[in-house]
Order: sequence, then structure tokens, then C-alpha cells
Amino acid sequence: MSLGLGLIGTGFMGKAHALAYRAAEAVFGDVPPVRLARLCDTPVENARRYATQFRFDVATDDWRTLMAAPDVDIVSITTPNALHKEMALAAIAAGKHVHCEKPLALTIDDAEEMEAAARAAGVRTMVGYNYIHNPAITHARRLISEGVIGKPVHFRGWVDEDYQADPDLPWTWRAKRADAGLGALGDLGCHLVSMSHILMGEIESLIADTQIIHDTRPLPDGSGRGTVENEDTASAILRYKTGAQGTVCTSRSAWGRKNKLDWELHGTKGMLTFSQERLNELQLYTNDGPKSQQGFRTILTGPEHAPYDSFCPAPGHQLGFGDLKTAEVATFLRAITAGTDAFPSFTDALEFERIIHAIDISAREGRRVTL
Amino acid sequence: MSLGLGLIGTGFMGKAHALAYRAAEAVFGDVPPVRLARLCDTPVENARRYATQFRFDVATDDWRTLMAAPDVDIVSITTPNALHKEMALAAIAAGKHVHCEKPLALTIDDAEEMEAAARAAGVRTMVGYNYIHNPAITHARRLISEGVIGKPVHFRGWVDEDYQADPDLPWTWRAKRADAGLGALGDLGCHLVSMSHILMGEIESLIADTQIIHDTRPLPDGSGRGTVENEDTASAILRYKTGAQGTVCTSRSAWGRKNKLDWELHGTKGMLTFSQERLNELQLYTNDGPKSQQGFRTILTGPEHAPYDSFCPAPGHQLGFGDLKTAEVATFLRAITAGTDAFPSFTDALEFERIIHAIDISAREGRRVTL
Amino acid sequence: MSLGLGLIGTGFMGKAHALAYRAAEAVFGDVPPVRLARLCDTPVENARRYATQFRFDVATDDWRTLMAAPDVDIVSITTPNALHKEMALAAIAAGKHVHCEKPLALTIDDAEEMEAAARAAGVRTMVGYNYIHNPAITHARRLISEGVIGKPVHFRGWVDEDYQADPDLPWTWRAKRADAGLGALGDLGCHLVSMSHILMGEIESLIADTQIIHDTRPLPDGSGRGTVENEDTASAILRYKTGAQGTVCTSRSAWGRKNKLDWELHGTKGMLTFSQERLNELQLYTNDGPKSQQGFRTILTGPEHAPYDSFCPAPGHQLGFGDLKTAEVATFLRAITAGTDAFPSFTDALEFERIIHAIDISAREGRRVTL
Amino acid sequence: MSLGLGLIGTGFMGKAHALAYRAAEAVFGDVPPVRLARLCDTPVENARRYATQFRFDVATDDWRTLMAAPDVDIVSITTPNALHKEMALAAIAAGKHVHCEKPLALTIDDAEEMEAAARAAGVRTMVGYNYIHNPAITHARRLISEGVIGKPVHFRGWVDEDYQADPDLPWTWRAKRADAGLGALGDLGCHLVSMSHILMGEIESLIADTQIIHDTRPLPDGSGRGTVENEDTASAILRYKTGAQGTVCTSRSAWGRKNKLDWELHGTKGMLTFSQERLNELQLYTNDGPKSQQGFRTILTGPEHAPYDSFCPAPGHQLGFGDLKTAEVATFLRAITAGTDAFPSFTDALEFERIIHAIDISAREGRRVTL
Repeated sequence: MSLGLGLIGTGFMGKAHALAYRAAEAVFGDVPPVRLARLCDTPVENARRYATQFRFDVATDDWRTLMAAPDVDIVSITTPNALHKEMALAAIAAGKHVHCEKPLALTIDDAEEMEAAARAAGVRTMVGYNYIHNPAITHARRLISEGVIGKPVHFRGWVDEDYQADPDLPWTWRAKRADAGLGALGDLGCHLVSMSHILMGEIESLIADTQIIHDTRPLPDGSGRGTVENEDTASAILRYKTGAQGTVCTSRSAWGRKNKLDWELHGTKGMLTFSQERLNELQLYTNDGPKSQQGFRTILTGPEHAPYDSFCPAPGHQLGFGDLKTAEVATFLRAITAGTDAFPSFTDALEFERIIHAIDISAREGRRVTL
Repeated sequence: MSLGLGLIGTGFMGKAHALAYRAAEAVFGDVPPVRLARLCDTPVENARRYATQFRFDVATDDWRTLMAAPDVDIVSITTPNALHKEMALAAIAAGKHVHCEKPLALTIDDAEEMEAAARAAGVRTMVGYNYIHNPAITHARRLISEGVIGKPVHFRGWVDEDYQADPDLPWTWRAKRADAGLGALGDLGCHLVSMSHILMGEIESLIADTQIIHDTRPLPDGSGRGTVENEDTASAILRYKTGAQGTVCTSRSAWGRKNKLDWELHGTKGMLTFSQERLNELQLYTNDGPKSQQGFRTILTGPEHAPYDSFCPAPGHQLGFGDLKTAEVATFLRAITAGTDAFPSFTDALEFERIIHAIDISAREGRRVTL
Repeated sequence: MSLGLGLIGTGFMGKAHALAYRAAEAVFGDVPPVRLARLCDTPVENARRYATQFRFDVATDDWRTLMAAPDVDIVSITTPNALHKEMALAAIAAGKHVHCEKPLALTIDDAEEMEAAARAAGVRTMVGYNYIHNPAITHARRLISEGVIGKPVHFRGWVDEDYQADPDLPWTWRAKRADAGLGALGDLGCHLVSMSHILMGEIESLIADTQIIHDTRPLPDGSGRGTVENEDTASAILRYKTGAQGTVCTSRSAWGRKNKLDWELHGTKGMLTFSQERLNELQLYTNDGPKSQQGFRTILTGPEHAPYDSFCPAPGHQLGFGDLKTAEVATFLRAITAGTDAFPSFTDALEFERIIHAIDISAREGRRVTL
Repeated sequence: MSLGLGLIGTGFMGKAHALAYRAAEAVFGDVPPVRLARLCDTPVENARRYATQFRFDVATDDWRTLMAAPDVDIVSITTPNALHKEMALAAIAAGKHVHCEKPLALTIDDAEEMEAAARAAGVRTMVGYNYIHNPAITHARRLISEGVIGKPVHFRGWVDEDYQADPDLPWTWRAKRADAGLGALGDLGCHLVSMSHILMGEIESLIADTQIIHDTRPLPDGSGRGTVENEDTASAILRYKTGAQGTVCTSRSAWGRKNKLDWELHGTKGMLTFSQERLNELQLYTNDGPKSQQGFRTILTGPEHAPYDSFCPAPGHQLGFGDLKTAEVATFLRAITAGTDAFPSFTDALEFERIIHAIDISAREGRRVTL
């Protein structure tokens, strides 16, 4: 069996999907072959150029025909967030498996509609929370489940970039809630929530605040200044269902942070910390052995930490961003073959994204939000 | 002019004060000589032993006679927090300058009473927020005031230790609100708040939550388990009067953290970060020069960063914890000589400590607290 | 034009080559398409299995037929080092372009023979010094050439792993000079020399010493202990033709080092340092601006540092080991298309490998070796 | 019993000695009280000023009277290196215990004369290799002796600063062999050798090279350029008597290095590394426990690591440069009281300093030097 891919979008994530689908079988061996069937972008010249570069069979600027095509089994959606819903619903209606970039949608209502449709149709879904496919993260989960750091009791996470840090950047559609939805929470915060979820479990309730640092920006046409409607930063204090507490914070205006997605997890016997900008490392402290020899240790990922070994048999050689995407794709392909749910499916992603919207609601309404 | 010191306590902080008062003149040159007049501890054998070791003239177990002594100009209080108030009020009543360890008192009412008494009496006061006397911190303040990172818009801080991380530790009086007051907030959180204050200015309001991780502990006499009444962790989201936001978090149950007191300060042109466990380093990122050469730089403190040069003329040779205390003492001695307020005085400390109590109130009452 | 690849070997490097040749066109766009024509390994079942996984057209266990095949334009040699020479000479004789893993050969005589043959035949060659294709390294070279750190005056480098650190590891053919050639110098040291060469230029002379830490190891058949004939560590002090000096050190018995390949380059105006286990970072210090703000800065690679942007348009997202191999392959493909020499060709690699053999000679003969 | 100190010099090291002798008894308790008897410097105003600041009884500009004084038991010599010999010999002749800054002398002949005189006179001696008194270093020695990293088999060390990195610095007497002796080896290299000695034991032979980066410098009077006669960098490859090998390297022209004194020690079961610019940390890797959890751990010094506890009972609070000097002084005072040799005495220091001169000889004569 081979699976035909219909990919929509050729930008940052479009290329990342193309590379990952091209690589998955060769890296892992145990995943079904993928045919790069159809690539959609506008204008069509763009689609054609990248169809050649990525070696798709067909280039198109009409995503509806892509979805209708019998040679397409999987639709991969990497377009701007505002387009996810319409495309995903159409793909589901066409009976395709859907791989959608995060976040699912601009609003939680839309995300719920997408999730319900996918569940009703019985198609397989996957959402692009690629950082959780990192072997370092998988290893962290294993250490937690084996009790190496005891019972998790506290969590702190931060996800920051600096793409909106410059006060002089012009206003764009990203600043408009109707077009972009949430700000830092939607772009970045949801990644952190996905980490929190897999490491700490479900959240019971939270309190939060958000901040718009640059409340207007110069309009690109020079006609004045446009209003920034969505948050530059968000901070929340969480209560998990286990009784643990934690904080999650995000900023899109944090100078110097390029892909910060850091967390620390406090257990009753030790601590784990992680930093995405050094994605091949995991820090572990345990209250074991002589006190005089205790300390945080840097575990450098290697073949002991699946699926690192599928990429490289030698430790310390480093996986990259693209490799995490390839691991995500392989997870999805295996789920399709097995007829089981992939993780994170639309259903899982909906849970993650409920949290970022709860943070937004708590901040706007000044109240504790129970999930 | 020389100043006579009456020191109460010979424990961790008692020794730190003794060493600092012994060293200040020799290190700085420009501070008045200090006579180590009287040392108080119980039992008196303890006082005698350390009076010999530290070279105090007189050993006593009666702190009231110490305060009454005409050869004592400064009373330094390093006893358990519950004793601060009575001793400080007595010292103030005796017209002595008072150096008190943090926090001022168990409750904000007590702290207010102490502050009012000191102000009314016109004595000089200093509270042991020694970390803010670090040359790295002073340099951070200078960089901010010079606009090197633009306008401060966001702050995050953490202060963690692991002295209450072990679930098997026995119950002590530190777990009882009546005896110890706040938990992590009082021991640790107030240090972080002092940093926030000098870097970001005053706080307008906050929301917070706290957590007791180990809600009972074995009683030392084996008679069962005692209740832990004060917080193991606290987290707060702050709104500063400038419009900036921020978070402060503390835990006394964070395995592996020995003296973590870290913060990051986001500005409109750059970022500063600091980590107390590497107290001689400051990290600076600025949006300057070629993009391809930007990065966080590690500034290692040296003679360019006063008062480092008073300790050592060569950069990178490292100051220690004791040196920060010596800098604190010098600051106090100079203020006494000059007849001006030292920083942080009881008045300043009261402001810091209002915040930790506001965090406690917000958490217990589930509401935003305005300061 | 498309180029047909004949790949020999399916191990660590075989898979790395397969993945890189699969990815290069899609990543870079400006390189010729590659046909995965023939894959050779023994036994043939192995070749077949991986030909399916990597999607080669033909599987074989006969490397001579692979080289003779008209559908093969490039022969990629990833077999054990002792086989490189025979295979490379055959490929050259067949008029194929040759991509060979490092080191070229077990002896410098063999390497010279290979280089001469390639040059005489006019085929394009590339040797697998993949770490020098890292955008961080390319950026370092640019900073040096732009004078950012002044004139390079001193270099220090280390390349360490721990695959021979365990005293209880059994003896293998890798310990035998006739089969494996050099020890740590051949496996690791040559990578470091390649870095030295591109950063500092040619070496005039050197003095060196080597060490066998574990001089015997248990024979796998339990019949006693076998002799370790090649070096566990090597250290050399270099004089460059520019007058600069430096040291290069390597160990294959350095516990905890998984892929250490670190260096520091001292200039008259600043310093650069790099660590392969954090391959997306470059450290830069320059004697610029206020002394009080100077420090080593961590430059995190991003789209400012070509060819990072071909993999990802967002900074800090991290390239991995495989991406460096893809960059190497792209460099080779472009050279073939352009009819120019790739870097590093057999000619360049010969220069690198002269150094590791000079280190060995200096150590064995106890004398300065002039190159 | 109290001991009278006669201190010569009030510069960087003079002040460091004064502070350390003032602090030692109060910090440690178990050392004899010190009387700050006499302080010598020129002009006498300087001596007077600092005698007041440091609280010495007598100020003088005549070091010979200081040595003759009956109230002086210990002579501490912190003058420029060229003066050490004459002063130390005079102090020894006067029957005083001698605390001398490193290096002992400009030449090995002079150092031998000093050592022989001290040994013949039976006075106690101490040389200012203060970094080896760091609790982190003491802990490293303990870990090695306990076999935690197995048998030491390889060592690498570096000691670098940047005080001669700037090409435009004027010529000073430090560049003249007759006045300053060795260059980087004398200022810095000897510290590293002291580390090598206590961690790895005695050296059997070595090969080395040295480099003058800036061979002339502008004369301060503007009359042209003066010749730099001593080395900016030195590098050596060592053979230890145990059969281990290693490298030691030093530079006084390494931009960005303020007090780098780093080393790594390879054992058959693990590795230790240390960095002086983070002097409260020790890195340990051991081949223990699950492979998937192995990594370098950062041990932060605390009360488990004597004599840290004498300075502070809480871990992670950080010792500074001055504290290491205080530990050195306490070691000397205890040895005087006990009538035993201190470490490192003139005899020990002579062994260290033989190595830096052997490095110089090897470099100048181009041959292996056996010790």
C-alpha cells in the first residue's frame, strides 16, 4: 500500500511537510511509501516551481480539485490559520485523512466543528505539534512514567520569540483578531500547552493575564497607525487535575529568543528541564547517590532515545527541526496504516487549544476559568 | 568616628554579618571603622565561643542589655523571623541604627509597625536584601537607565531552593504560620520581589496562586504527622505601574535548585537575564549591529562594574556570597555617616514585603489584589 | 540533466548519504535531480531491503557492476576505510564522479594514489568532511575574512568521543593498524584538521605525541587479549604558515564526549569558539563597544547564515547532523553541474590527511615534522 | 598564641592577603589569631593609608626593618616577582615563616636557592597558588582518590587571560625577560601546572612550543617600539610518571578570557571538568546507571564540600576569589601551629615551577625535556 499526499501550501510549513513526507519511509523503514501526488499553491507558477523541486506529480492552484482527487489519501494543510477550517472540513467531507498545522482554527468553536467532523467521518487526523515528537521529550515522558523524578508536582513553561519585538515593524493582518485569532498564544502558546499536556496531564482551571506591548503599529501604506488587537504576551497560573500547579508564559516580543520553548518539571524526587533551542539535550536532577555528587546532568540524545536511532546510530550527532517533522509524519503514516488514532489528533489538539482560549478568556474577563 | 556593632545571632546570617562588618572598612576604605562591641546568642557559651572567633569585645545572652549599651551604635538582628519585631522595636526605642535580616516580620501589620517606629525615631535602617548589592545587578540597573535595552516591558523571575523538597523531611515550626509566617514567599519570594522592585519599579496589582505540595510531614517525636500551613510554591502575574506585566514564582521544594534567583527583563530594544547561581554573570541581548552577529552575550563582572573593583582589580575573578553582604554593610555604614537613608531601608523593605503578602491574599481569596 | 547515484554501503554513513541525496534537490532547488540508481551491500538481502526503504532502482552485492553501470554518474563510497582505495580507483577508472567518506585511505601513500588518479581522470570528487558545511562554520569563516576578530593568531581544537573508553570492550579490527590504519586520528582527528585548515590555513610544521590507553583488550573469542596497535589519544602543537600557533587533540576514550569537535580561534581583535555538540551555536567575543558590556555572545544560526535558510526560514529552529550531509551533497552536485572542483575534493582531503599522518610520524619518531 | 603578620605590598595581591589574614580566624575558628603587625609599601604614604584601611599597627617603607621586627612571625611577600628572591631570603634569614606570591622567582636557579634556604632554616612556607584551595578542586581530588572516575589517563588544561591581547598596548617591563622572567607561563601557566600536579601527579617529560604574538609594542615615551622578549602563548604535551599524557596551554592574549583556568581529566570510568570562571561548579560524568540517563552533571559546591561550610552553611551561595585566599591563609596558619609543612610550600612550588621553565626550554631548544 502506498499513500498519496495532497499538500496545500509551499511556505515555511509547506516545505517542511514536503521534506518530511519525502524522508519518512527512508528514515524509518516501517512506514508506508508516500506518493507526492498533488501540490497546491497560488499563483499556480508557485505551485509548479515547488512541485518540480519537491517532485510532486501534479501542481495546482485549486485546492478543491486536490481534495477531490482519487490519488490523494492524505491532505496536508499548511496555509494561514484562517483557512484551516474550510479546507479541513472539505478534506474530511472528501473522506481524506487530514494533517493540519497548528492551531486548528482561529476560534474554539471552529476547532470544535473540525474535530467533530473528523470524528464523525472516521478519518485519521494529525496536528503539527512537532516538538513533542522530539526523542528528548519522549525520553522525558518515559523518565516520568518510570518514577525517576517521583510524582510531578509543579510545571513551568515559556515559549518566546522576537518576531514582534521591534516597535517599528509595520502593522499586518497578524495583529487583527478576525484574521489571525489569538496572538502569541495562537502562534506559540499552543506548542507549550501541548508539552504541558503530555508531561503533566489535564488542566482543571487557570487564571491569566495578557498584554499588548505595542498597541499600534505603522500601517504599511504610510496612512497612519493600525491597532494591534491580539496579545504580545500571555501568562497563566494553572491547576492540574492531579493537584499540581504550574505557570505557562508566552511572548512574541522577547528580544533574542528565536525558538525558546523551555520548561521545567518539578517532581517529588527530582527535576527535569528542557530548552528547545538546544533540542538535543535534557537536564535531569535526582535526589540519588551521595549528596556531594548530585547535580543537574545534561543528557545528550542518542540511539538510547527512540526514535533518534532511526536518524543516526551515533549519540550526540544532533537531530534538527526537520527531523522532528519527519517523526511526526511517520507517526501519522503508521496510524493510518494501523487504523488507529494518531497523537495528537484533532481531538487531542482541541484539548490543547481549549487552554489557550481559556487563557485569553481569563485575561479578558478577569476571572478563573474552569476547563 | 567609629561605630559600635551589637550583633544578635551567630547562625548562618549572624556569621555572615560578623564577617561583613569585619571586612567592610578594609575592602572599601571609605567607610567608618566598626568596633565589634557586643555579640548576643543563647546559650551564653555559644555567644562566648563566637565572640572569641569573631573578636567581639563582649559576649552576652541578653539582647536587651546589648541594646541598652552605650558602646553599641548599630544593632544587627539575625534571629529567626518571629523575633525581628520585638528586637527591632527595642533597638529603635534605644535610638540605635538597625540592620535587620529579611523579611522584616511575619505579618505586614508587624512590618508596618516596625517601619513607622523607625521613621518616627529617625534612626537609619537596612534590611538584608543582599543580592541587590551585586555589581552585576547594579550594572543591570545602569544598562536599563541608559536605555540599552529600551523601555522595560516584561519581567519574569524565579526564586527556588530544595530545602523542603524531600517528602520525608520531618515537620518543623517553619511549617506553622503563627511561628514562621509565610512559607516560600517569606524565605525566598521576598528576595525576588526586591529584584523586581529595583529593576521594574512599583507594582499596581496582581493575581496569584499558591500550593502546598506536602500537606503533612512526620512529627519529629514520631507521634504522627503535622500539618504544613504555609505555601511550598507561589506564582503571581503582575501589572506594574508602568503598564509592563510580569510573573514571579517561588518554590522551596524544587529539587536541584540551591540558590536559584533568576530573572529576565524584556525591553523594547533588548533583553537582560541573570542567574544567582552564577552571580558574576549578566546576559545581555541587544538589537544592534548586523543581525548575523546578534546573540546573548555573557558579561562577566569585573572592575568596570562597581563595587567589584573594591574587592579585586582583575576581571572574572569572582565575588562570592559574603562579598555581597560586605557591600550591603558598606552601604549601610556610609548612609549612617552621611545621615541619609540607606537602601533598602525598612521603608523600602516594607514595599517589597507588601507584595509577598498581596500574593498570599490573592491566592487565598481568589481575587486580584491592588497595591 | 539528472545524475544517477550508485551508493556502496548501507550502514551509518550509507544511510546518511541515501537520505542526503534524496533530500538535496527538494531542500535547495538549485541542484540537479538525482536518480537513486543502484545500491550495493552484502549480503544482497541487505542491499535489497535498503534499496526498497531508500527507493533505489537496483540492489546489488557486486560493487564492480555498480561502477560499470551507465546509469551511474556518481559513486558514493561509505564502506570501511580499508576498502576506500580499491573502490575509488575503480570508480575513477570508470569515469565516475566519486563521493568518498573520510579518511580517504589508511595510509598517506594510498591517499596520494587516489588523489592523483582522480586528478588525472578529471572526475569530480568530494570527501565526507560534513561538519565544515555547517552554516555556523561558514559564518565563522566569513567573520574571519571580514576581519571581525582581527588577524587569527592562535587555534585550539579537540575532537573526542568515548566509543573506546570502556576498558572492558573487546578487541576488534579497529585496533589493528593494517586493517584500520590510524586510531583516533583517522576516525576523529581528521575532522578537526579539516576545521583547522579552513579556518587557519596551511600548517608548516608540528610536534606531537600519542598514547595508547588500553594497550590490550579481551579477544572476542575468549582466547586471551589482543594488542591495540593504534592511538587512543593524540596531541599536536602546530605552527601555521602565517606564523600562528595552535594545538589539536583527539581522544576516542573520553567518557561523556559523544561528538565533541570543539575549537577556539584567537584573533588580534576577538575570539570565536564552536562546539559541535551544540552545532547551531557560534560564540563570538570582540573588543568593541563599552568594556562594561563586552562578553562572549552566543550566535544562534538562522536564515542570516546560509545555507540555513534553505532548510528553514525561521532562526533558532536547529539543523541536525543529516542536514549537514545534505549541504555537502548539494555542494558536490553543484560542482558536478558547473564542472568545477568541489570542496573538499580528494586534493583538499589529501592535505587534511597529511596532517594526521604527520602527527603520527612526529609521535613515533620524536621529532618535528615539516609539511 | 597569636601570630604577627608583616605584609609587603598593597596592590592587588597585597590587599588580597590583608583581607584574607583579617578574615581567617573569624571564618574558620580553628586557626590562631593573627596580629596585623606591619605593612610595608613605597612611598610611605601609601603604606600609611593602607595600614589605616587594613588596620595594621605599623606602616613602613623599609621592608628590612619589617623583617627584623620581633612582632613579625610571618612575612607575606606580594611585590613584583623580581623582588621575591631577595625578600624571601632575608625573611628566611630572620627566621620568619614566609608566604610568597607565585611564581617564586624569575629563574629556576633563584627558586632553587629560595627553596634550599627555607628548608635549611626550617621555617614554614606557603606559595600563593590559591586556586587549588577551592572546595571544588578539593572535591575533585577526593572523587579521583575514591576511584569515581577510575584511573586518570589524560589531562588537558588551559589558562588564559586577555591583558596582553590588545596590539596597541604600550611596552612595559613585563615584556623583558631580565625584569619579568617568563611571560604567560610565569603569570598564568604556573597556576595550571599546580592544578595538574595535584590532580595527576608528577610529570616525566614534555615537548613544547611558545609564541610571541606581538613581537614589538610602542614604547610609552613615544620613542619607537620595544621588543617583547617573553611568550604570549605556550603549549606543551606532557607525559606523566603514571603513563598518562596531557596538554597544558596558556595565553595572555586571548580576548574575552578574564580568568580562564579550565581543565578536563579523563579517567577510565568517567571524566571531571572544571572552569575557574565558574569556580563554584564541577562537572562530573561517570559511566554508571542506565546509558539513557548518563550525562555530565554540574555539581554546585556547598557544605558537603569542605571548607565551603566554614564560609556558608547553605549550598549554591557561591564562594569568591577572596574566599580562596582566606582558605590558603588558614592552611598556612594551621601548618605553622602544627609545625608541619603547608601545601604548597616552597618545595612544592619549586616542583610546579620547574615545569614552566621546562616548557620554555623545550620550546627554545626544540627538544623533549625530561624532568
